[in-house]
Amino acid sequence: MDVSKVPTTVARVFRGTCVHSTEQEALVILEDALLGVDSNGKISFVEKGQELGKVSTKFGFTSRDVIQLTPHEFLMPGLVDTHIHAAQYSFAGTALDLPLLEWLKTYTFPVESKFQDLDFARMVYTQVVKRTLRNGTTTACYFATIHTESSLLLGEIANDFGQRALVGKVCMDRNGAYEDYKELGTQESVDDTIRFITELSKNNYPLVKPVITPRFAVSCTGELLLKLGEVAKNNDLHIQSHISENKDEVQLVKEMFPDYESYTDVYDKHNLLTNKTIMAHGCYLSDEELDIFHRTGASLAHCPNSNISLCSGLLNVRKVLSHKVKLGLATDVAGGYSASMLDAVRRTRDTSKALTIEDATHQTLTFEETFRLATLGGSQALSMDGQTGNFEVGKDFDALRVNVAAPDGPIDLVQNDGPKVLLEKFLNLGDDRNILEVYVAGQKVVPFK
Amino acid sequence: MDVSKVPTTVARVFRGTCVHSTEQEALVILEDALLGVDSNGKISFVEKGQELGKVSTKFGFTSRDVIQLTPHEFLMPGLVDTHIHAAQYSFAGTALDLPLLEWLKTYTFPVESKFQDLDFARMVYTQVVKRTLRNGTTTACYFATIHTESSLLLGEIANDFGQRALVGKVCMDRNGAYEDYKELGTQESVDDTIRFITELSKNNYPLVKPVITPRFAVSCTGELLLKLGEVAKNNDLHIQSHISENKDEVQLVKEMFPDYESYTDVYDKHNLLTNKTIMAHGCYLSDEELDIFHRTGASLAHCPNSNISLCSGLLNVRKVLSHKVKLGLATDVAGGYSASMLDAVRRTRDTSKALTIEDATHQTLTFEETFRLATLGGSQALSMDGQTGNFEVGKDFDALRVNVAAPDGPIDLVQNDGPKVLLEKFLNLGDDRNILEVYVAGQKVVPFK
Ligand SMILES: [Zn+2]
Ligand SMILES: [Zn+2]
Repeated sequence: MDVSKVPTTVARVFRGTCVHSTEQEALVILEDALLGVDSNGKISFVEKGQELGKVSTKFGFTSRDVIQLTPHEFLMPGLVDTHIHAAQYSFAGTALDLPLLEWLKTYTFPVESKFQDLDFARMVYTQVVKRTLRNGTTTACYFATIHTESSLLLGEIANDFGQRALVGKVCMDRNGAYEDYKELGTQESVDDTIRFITELSKNNYPLVKPVITPRFAVSCTGELLLKLGEVAKNNDLHIQSHISENKDEVQLVKEMFPDYESYTDVYDKHNLLTNKTIMAHGCYLSDEELDIFHRTGASLAHCPNSNISLCSGLLNVRKVLSHKVKLGLATDVAGGYSASMLDAVRRTRDTSKALTIEDATHQTLTFEETFRLATLGGSQALSMDGQTGNFEVGKDFDALRVNVAAPDGPIDLVQNDGPKVLLEKFLNLGDDRNILEVYVAGQKVVPFK
Repeated sequence: MDVSKVPTTVARVFRGTCVHSTEQEALVILEDALLGVDSNGKISFVEKGQELGKVSTKFGFTSRDVIQLTPHEFLMPGLVDTHIHAAQYSFAGTALDLPLLEWLKTYTFPVESKFQDLDFARMVYTQVVKRTLRNGTTTACYFATIHTESSLLLGEIANDFGQRALVGKVCMDRNGAYEDYKELGTQESVDDTIRFITELSKNNYPLVKPVITPRFAVSCTGELLLKLGEVAKNNDLHIQSHISENKDEVQLVKEMFPDYESYTDVYDKHNLLTNKTIMAHGCYLSDEELDIFHRTGASLAHCPNSNISLCSGLLNVRKVLSHKVKLGLATDVAGGYSASMLDAVRRTRDTSKALTIEDATHQTLTFEETFRLATLGGSQALSMDGQTGNFEVGKDFDALRVNVAAPDGPIDLVQNDGPKVLLEKFLNLGDDRNILEVYVAGQKVVPFK
């Protein structure tokens, strides 16, 4: 985008350290940068601090308008949570003692059933949107529940707090494990989905969009999968689901869909793998399956906390990337106990290191690579990298203002650490206390109004 | 101990939920308990709230003296960090991209060398004592550096802030990897150690004691190991070191001590394994070696963050416990990036779950077991369980007052969760914001004076 032709005014200018990622470099550090945001929330320039005079003349601001970052502060792109179950936030941090299929039946389905109660839904959805925002999640890809009304409410709350979100009303027309929690039938599921996307779209929320959400192959008939693929196609929508999370689940899908070559093939044949599809987990995908992901442009949401906490498996991210499959990070609340993407960053490295412990030839992900996966990688995985993910001029300003030395915060500093060390300390040790401000599309959404 | 015969007065009485562990039960929940602390800092009674009248008469306090906990609060025993390098705190959260031996040479030894500078030492040691205390570490077993003066300073600072601590001046009379950081010779190392324990003991700190600290077999001659064993024996002191942390190190010890049957045998033959010895890591110990630990009463400090972060290995705690070897948890700062024992609790479960992922027959540690390891287990590992570790009458009151619903804290609650869920949420999601008060031997040490 050639910003110079767009007649917008500069709304904010920051001066200080900016860190972000590009396709070429996992970590780009810009010291003493000038970053301008226009009145549409887009990045209008990224220049050198010493060019202040020239830049301010060109873009029509004065040095008094410049927000100067302190030496322990930096701007970084917002964190992208590519897979989170908003309703499950109500039991986050508990109930982690069972494997996936039993965990769903024992803890998850009973809780999700409660979300026909709009008051309960409002309380939990408000908590999760606020909690993730203050932890720096500028974009969240949400699973709600099967309930249309409360799923719409999640969209409303995300919009109210200014979070960029994809919101999915969950579709499941069968649920052998727990018959009390499923939809009335296939057509009802499709009809409710269409009503959900129609109603949500009617609100014209600038940053909140619907995503077609078959829970996973186990809880959907082939007919439902096919119809949802059609709805997604007709409306050019995102699609999300789960795939190959745990061995028992993979086996179950094989039994339920005996005529398909793989779990991936099930989704592919039902037209659910597109370049706007994001599938969670993928721990046990074969090379052939990853090739289908690459071919279709579908991406993976890596859920390391959940993968460990439910003893599901250790996803080899290096292998996924080597197949040129897009991959973002995710909290997967509440299989993952933490709603903070900083935890997802840490658990991604842990998982990679555990794979190195198993096999010394495994090339551990660097902290720089993990940083990229949590920001630009997530935007790519959601096919939003034309608009978010880094500080490219013309993109929306989705960003965190981080102060590593925040008073009463979790980090001690001993010397004049450079920006790379500050970023590493923040990623390893930081929390919401270090996140002074969060911006989505140029709007300051944290601190909360 | 029969407290009724000790003429002490009750200094504090709490009423509310208390959680702790015993030898028999990993998690004991006492709802509406009355817990009294006497003027010597010892627990004088643990009774039922409904017995208030009787108990107050017997112990001579009034109901106005009772500190009532709110429904979201509980008392738990203080956390015991069985292995932490105080000096390395200065680079915690960075420099985690190399395996142990290279990591020591590249990052650790150069930093530890700086601790001849007492100003630098004072700054870092104050930070680490405060940081660990506010995160609930009531007992810490510290490695300092080779420098006697700054090691004494660490003891002074721990005493000043009221932390229970074992402090070790590090002994190393050889250091092939980095010759700039070692002591002048074997006798100097022994002499300095004796001076360190003499000076430290002279201060009569009630809660801070010296611990004999050969760094590890790689950096000590056999002569030094033997002499340190003698010093420990003559003064009835604790001993700490490292063992079997990573495969290259195990191999190196085999080459350096070819006449010994195992890494454990090296320490055993130099009289360094006693029931007051704690060895960090132990990832690759054989059954035979664990049997030596059991026989000698020596214990292990499990350092899960460090084991993962440096790709050292995954310790099978279940196996250690099955050999009836005492085991505590540890942060191992800065190989472990977090100084918080809550992180050690989480990474202990992660490691156990990673082992279950590898081998489905592995019996994952429960959260209750992990809670016990972080409290009573640590006290046992340090042979301090006669005095600390749980809420047994007669023990010192080392405790945390936790508020799971602390305002602006990291945890959201949705319903009237019971104490078990509150504890689980705290262990998984809590941080220092949830730790309202920390007590060591009955003294309130957090908030800081
Ligand atoms: Zn999920
Ligand atoms: Zn260590």
